[in-house]
Amino acid sequence: MRVSWFNGALIEGAIGVDPADRGLTHGDGVFETILVRKGQPIWFAEHLLRLREAAIELGVACDLVIIRDAVLAILQKSNSESEVLRITLTRGVVIARSLSGEGIAPSLLVTLAPFVAMEISAFTLVTSSIRRNETSPASRMKTLSYIDNILAAREVAALADDALMLNTQAHVACTTIGNLFLLTGNQLITPQLDQGVLPGVTRAKILHLASELRLQAVEAVVQPEDLLSADAVFCCNSLRLVTAVTKVDNRDVGQRSLVELKKLISERI
Amino acid sequence: MRVSWFNGALIEGAIGVDPADRGLTHGDGVFETILVRKGQPIWFAEHLLRLREAAIELGVACDLVIIRDAVLAILQKSNSESEVLRITLTRGVVIARSLSGEGIAPSLLVTLAPFVAMEISAFTLVTSSIRRNETSPASRMKTLSYIDNILAAREVAALADDALMLNTQAHVACTTIGNLFLLTGNQLITPQLDQGVLPGVTRAKILHLASELRLQAVEAVVQPEDLLSADAVFCCNSLRLVTAVTKVDNRDVGQRSLVELKKLISERI
Repeated sequence: MRVSWFNGALIEGAIGVDPADRGLTHGDGVFETILVRKGQPIWFAEHLLRLREAAIELGVACDLVIIRDAVLAILQKSNSESEVLRITLTRGVVIARSLSGEGIAPSLLVTLAPFVAMEISAFTLVTSSIRRNETSPASRMKTLSYIDNILAAREVAALADDALMLNTQAHVACTTIGNLFLLTGNQLITPQLDQGVLPGVTRAKILHLASELRLQAVEAVVQPEDLLSADAVFCCNSLRLVTAVTKVDNRDVGQRSLVELKKLISERI
Repeated sequence: MRVSWFNGALIEGAIGVDPADRGLTHGDGVFETILVRKGQPIWFAEHLLRLREAAIELGVACDLVIIRDAVLAILQKSNSESEVLRITLTRGVVIARSLSGEGIAPSLLVTLAPFVAMEISAFTLVTSSIRRNETSPASRMKTLSYIDNILAAREVAALADDALMLNTQAHVACTTIGNLFLLTGNQLITPQLDQGVLPGVTRAKILHLASELRLQAVEAVVQPEDLLSADAVFCCNSLRLVTAVTKVDNRDVGQRSLVELKKLISERI
């Protein structure tokens, strides 16, 4: 059985969760998944900051000192070249029978699992009928309420590697597990945050590194047809980093090389 | 400590959850909350059917025999006049690192808690900026991914008793905890299911009982301004049953009597 850190202790196997914990009962919490290479969490500070910002917006207490200590404790158990660290913070138990109620004490779960990055040569997307709800602040947080992305992933699972998710205005938002970028001329374009996308840590790194590739970073409103006219389209997240998209809805997309970008990203982790 | 039924056994206090259970990690599951009066679950068959339909749509195995046995076991612990029974069914653990993956075995949690129905005389609503996402099938299921409703409830908590949620088309959907009805002339109107609303058990009962009150039940697209011109507006759910709305966004709404309807509903539970 694998070891987790849960509410103050390292635990083997199942963890003792209060059956009224709002993380379990209402997807009421936030999480981060972080790549670990040779025992080192990559872009750890950035992930912690994002977690804290989301926790503040949800009204969930977030003590970064406790979280750092928990991560250090679990990283002692690191035993693979490449692993995934997950930090889960829930609102805990709410005493009053009220959706808007405050939690008594948050629950903190930290886990470490082996991560085998599959090299996918042809990453294809099919558009989901399920839209990202950009009217909700949750669309810009990595909350435990993942059901729309799960349903979108299941909708296209037999057809493509991932779902392209548009927002309620039919603009491009993201995939179910990552941000999207378009490489068009000298522009590196990604949907802006008000389009219903996560402020991805890898997304921010890429925007920051663009100038080193003599590219102009642009956050914009992206239309679905822009994907088909781009020189290249790629998906990014903190585990798989950069993955080229080859087809959208069975139509070929540009295949300009991403070698330089991938090299730059891997140098910075 | 209260007793729960979890995965085959009655447990006091904390339950032993796999830290990778998708209910906890991704709000990936469904639930029902059921009113219990003198040890009897109200409209139990209807709740079980709704749970099973949602589970099928999510691809989560749902064995009603096991669920019924669990409910019977926990109802042995009934010790109040009025209680709330909650059935939570999660996808359980998914082996592959894949949002669309299948669960190995679902987790089933059944809890029973005292329920004190507060008689609220002036139930007010304020419109949330967060829309119900009617493009997602999850908007028609009681899934664990409740974060949008939680954020909407928190947004208006200082201003009103609950949030009015519109859908992405700016039509009336529901509140964060119940369905909405309008009483207008001889019509009893509620937003139709494609508007991003749960197929509420109490909602269905009311639609069914309308004719006994010489009212015509209508499922329709409802505009926000329709609320202000109605003779009465009310909210319903399985615990509070029928609650009259007095104000929407600080504007008075009609106060035609709901006594007959309330009486009919309480006779049928």
